[in-house]
Amino acid sequence: MARGRLVVFEGGEGAGKSTQLRRLAASLTAAGVAHRVFREPGGTPAGDRIRDLLLHSHEPLAPRTEAALFIASRAQLVAAEIVPALERGEQVLLDRFLLSTYAYQVHGRGLSESEVRAANRLATAGLVPDLTLLLALPPGEGLARAGARGGADRIERAEVAFHERVAAAFLRFSASEWQQEHPECGPIVAVDAAGTEEEVESRLRAVVAARLPGLLAMAVRP
Amino acid sequence: MARGRLVVFEGGEGAGKSTQLRRLAASLTAAGVAHRVFREPGGTPAGDRIRDLLLHSHEPLAPRTEAALFIASRAQLVAAEIVPALERGEQVLLDRFLLSTYAYQVHGRGLSESEVRAANRLATAGLVPDLTLLLALPPGEGLARAGARGGADRIERAEVAFHERVAAAFLRFSASEWQQEHPECGPIVAVDAAGTEEEVESRLRAVVAARLPGLLAMAVRP
Repeated sequence: MARGRLVVFEGGEGAGKSTQLRRLAASLTAAGVAHRVFREPGGTPAGDRIRDLLLHSHEPLAPRTEAALFIASRAQLVAAEIVPALERGEQVLLDRFLLSTYAYQVHGRGLSESEVRAANRLATAGLVPDLTLLLALPPGEGLARAGARGGADRIERAEVAFHERVAAAFLRFSASEWQQEHPECGPIVAVDAAGTEEEVESRLRAVVAARLPGLLAMAVRP
Repeated sequence: MARGRLVVFEGGEGAGKSTQLRRLAASLTAAGVAHRVFREPGGTPAGDRIRDLLLHSHEPLAPRTEAALFIASRAQLVAAEIVPALERGEQVLLDRFLLSTYAYQVHGRGLSESEVRAANRLATAGLVPDLTLLLALPPGEGLARAGARGGADRIERAEVAFHERVAAAFLRFSASEWQQEHPECGPIVAVDAAGTEEEVESRLRAVVAARLPGLLAMAVRP
């Protein structure tokens, strides 16, 4: 049994990560490909309690507290769910992972990259994604989409300048220099997230077909 | 206004940390010395929710999850309570801090020291204790005391071999070589925790008087 692949969806608020992840998962389901879908933070009972604390704390959380809580949720998800699923040969689709920590905690909150990298290492124990799909939108457009959806949580309500720093950071992560300096993140491909859901899906499928041919070949096999 | 001092109480289960901390706090109260008392994990609303998750999770927590949750609780306590109190000139007495992470997560759970040290750095942002009082008991004796107290939580129920590793680790931390290699922990003094509460208190007061003369001089001023 071949080990499964870990495919991560990343991007700022409103870039369409979750929608596109669901569309790829539906393709896998239709084709009978065993897979699991997770989102960060959360995905385990402990992770869901951590998610609730992160998104709905009534007390201001220090940036370092926030970072450590994301790391705790990730450590549990990796150990209890992702690694066992990959070892069973299942494909894993993950909504946010390492890049979100770099974007939000380093570029958004101003923590040092070396501290955040060390914390990431604690969480992943060396697990590297096989592919990260980075949905790229100009910052203003993503926030407008997220705002239109309503029901903003604590992180979505943060000031616009914060989200602009985060969106600008995401755009840098697909640069080859950044990827060479961050091998723990694995290969990262930016995909234009503008246009209809079908248009974006078509771009994503082209990237997946090129980078992980086994995955979509299984999914489209009649 | 002089900055307050951070005094940490450390030791394995049943060594009498909490009892001795309360006795020193009572001396400070009687002498009218402004001080705060905290315990880890906890001490803030977020920290108390993290403590509950750590001590009473029904799901097995991965060692890395456990470590990150302790770090999250510590980050919030340092940023929201300890540093502001020290800056107001208050003394801070703290039940467990960095040494517990080294003892439980590295020597107990087997995580790497470099990972745990990096996580500690994320939590403390450079805060170093002025004095750590390490209450030293042979492992078996501490567990017997803790067992007699009843109501064991998830961590106290862990296997005896785990607690023996932890107790052996604590005994090493007062060695001068260990302290030189871990400057982030500040000065550490081991105190024999055998005997009556009064006997142990007397030994602790002698150490505090020698290392932080200002603290007890304030406390005994009529």
